[in-house]
Amino acid sequence: MPELRKDPTVGRWVIIATERVRRPVDLAVPAAPRRGGPCPFCAGHEKETPPEVLAYRAPATAEQDAPGWRVRVVPNKFPALRVEGELGRRGDGVYDVMSGIGAHEVVVESPDHDIALAALPVEGVEDVVRAWRDRIVDLRRDGRLRSAIVFKNHGARAGASLEHPHSQIIATPIVPLAIADELHQARAYFDYRERCLYCDIVYQETTERVRVVAENAEAVAFAPYAPRFPFETWILPRRHAAAFDQATDAELSALAALLRDVLGRLDRVVADPPFNMILHTAPFGGESSPSYHWHVEIVPTLTTAAGFEVGTGFHINPMPPEEAARLLREV
Amino acid sequence: MPELRKDPTVGRWVIIATERVRRPVDLAVPAAPRRGGPCPFCAGHEKETPPEVLAYRAPATAEQDAPGWRVRVVPNKFPALRVEGELGRRGDGVYDVMSGIGAHEVVVESPDHDIALAALPVEGVEDVVRAWRDRIVDLRRDGRLRSAIVFKNHGARAGASLEHPHSQIIATPIVPLAIADELHQARAYFDYRERCLYCDIVYQETTERVRVVAENAEAVAFAPYAPRFPFETWILPRRHAAAFDQATDAELSALAALLRDVLGRLDRVVADPPFNMILHTAPFGGESSPSYHWHVEIVPTLTTAAGFEVGTGFHINPMPPEEAARLLREV
Repeated sequence: MPELRKDPTVGRWVIIATERVRRPVDLAVPAAPRRGGPCPFCAGHEKETPPEVLAYRAPATAEQDAPGWRVRVVPNKFPALRVEGELGRRGDGVYDVMSGIGAHEVVVESPDHDIALAALPVEGVEDVVRAWRDRIVDLRRDGRLRSAIVFKNHGARAGASLEHPHSQIIATPIVPLAIADELHQARAYFDYRERCLYCDIVYQETTERVRVVAENAEAVAFAPYAPRFPFETWILPRRHAAAFDQATDAELSALAALLRDVLGRLDRVVADPPFNMILHTAPFGGESSPSYHWHVEIVPTLTTAAGFEVGTGFHINPMPPEEAARLLREV
Repeated sequence: MPELRKDPTVGRWVIIATERVRRPVDLAVPAAPRRGGPCPFCAGHEKETPPEVLAYRAPATAEQDAPGWRVRVVPNKFPALRVEGELGRRGDGVYDVMSGIGAHEVVVESPDHDIALAALPVEGVEDVVRAWRDRIVDLRRDGRLRSAIVFKNHGARAGASLEHPHSQIIATPIVPLAIADELHQARAYFDYRERCLYCDIVYQETTERVRVVAENAEAVAFAPYAPRFPFETWILPRRHAAAFDQATDAELSALAALLRDVLGRLDRVVADPPFNMILHTAPFGGESSPSYHWHVEIVPTLTTAAGFEVGTGFHINPMPPEEAARLLREV
């Protein structure tokens, strides 16, 4: 059973895979994604994954774990956290630890091995975004869990170990540090101003328009004011809502359209960059927060985030966001 | 002039290099360090760097910017921050910004291009550590600056763009997020327990001994309880002191000995791993803090820290620290 351990010096929870001790030599050689299909995520290979927990299918293909799906969600075969068991929260001297309980699922974004998310028709991206929501709604029912993170690693340099387009969902019994930091800052801002920080950001960005990349009626994509990485782009819904699963169907469609648009622009400005995409949503139970606001962060990994940056949280970005936004906007 | 901008959603300051706009295509191809010397950091090439701000020399070689030095500190030729100018702290709507004032220096650890820090005699490592202290003492005098970070990137995968052994010092008018998080947690712990968290950690680690890698009379090296990365190792002085430049000569020698020892052990367990080393020290003015405790973090970059980890602060570590410490201890 993996463990969740807390670093008391910064309040950061870390998953320690206590079972799967790898040989040191294995760590020295990064695994490159296998090139070319078919793979266990491809249509026709459904039996090579754990049984699906969700799939969107054409009406005529009702059979589970068989072809006919457009988007398919399965438990991760090598999960970072396990579903079964008790939390067992306990102290260990000055430290805190609990069992590595949680969910780790894979959202297979297309039955086709070779179609990147950005290349799917907009209905395909809508299916993906809807699958994220439906899984979060389901995971929220597990009283042990407090938070869900949806993320996507694209490209080996961004940490993708499989080529077939997919995103991942990790639901945890703790709130990850970056989300906790966001909640804290948002609450402090709200306490002082009685307004949502993110609503104010949407207002300023759509008024100044120097960092806007793309927008539609429901959401706006922009380069954040203080991005850690070149071409970092955030997508925020215009309407205040703390949790992603509070999004309306129209907002999900708007997010899908902007995701597809932004990834396509990135592809045209920096040919097929490796990137990470992270959905930031309120912890379970925090849906009514007046200060938090769900959003999506797209982080191209074009520069080497040296451990210096990882270690200090202090980034040097050689690309001003106004310039990045202009390049993405005009492409 | 670069800018320091604050991301209001997490309170993180970022350096934006507003002058040096790179072409997007340059970002897509990571620069590999040039292999082999001689380079501007080599003995005999002193005129290819900005004039030295510090050098330790044999008594007979008093001439500046000429051979004869053991360790040499020069301003970074391509600094992330500039020394000249006013801070100009100001608001920008909901955001905060100031001029990119600060120091960015390079500590050339040896006149020899090919001798890694771990391969220097212990007196050589002592010179390096002493140079860090002497520069911090000097930088602290600049009233505009609030914090100094000393770090070392070793290996291309850890973000090193130059091969010649060197470390860097960045002094900033702000407190980096990770240090701010540490100060906050340490203060909360002290408020509750009336003890320094780090002193308690030293006590627990040297009592349990399951994560100790090496130790001497003044300091201890151990795998932290909740490491983000395999073989992450911290070095803490046993005696409480918030700021690195409060370290005694004996403590500096002890740190040098452990640094050399730990890097040598890492080299033997995982052949010459890329790594980052970061010195965490109290912000200027915080020297008397009863809750903060300077320390060094050594972070091998064996796994790809996906932007997922960067984005959420949530890490999955496949190597339990007890196992990592055992391997490093027994090698």
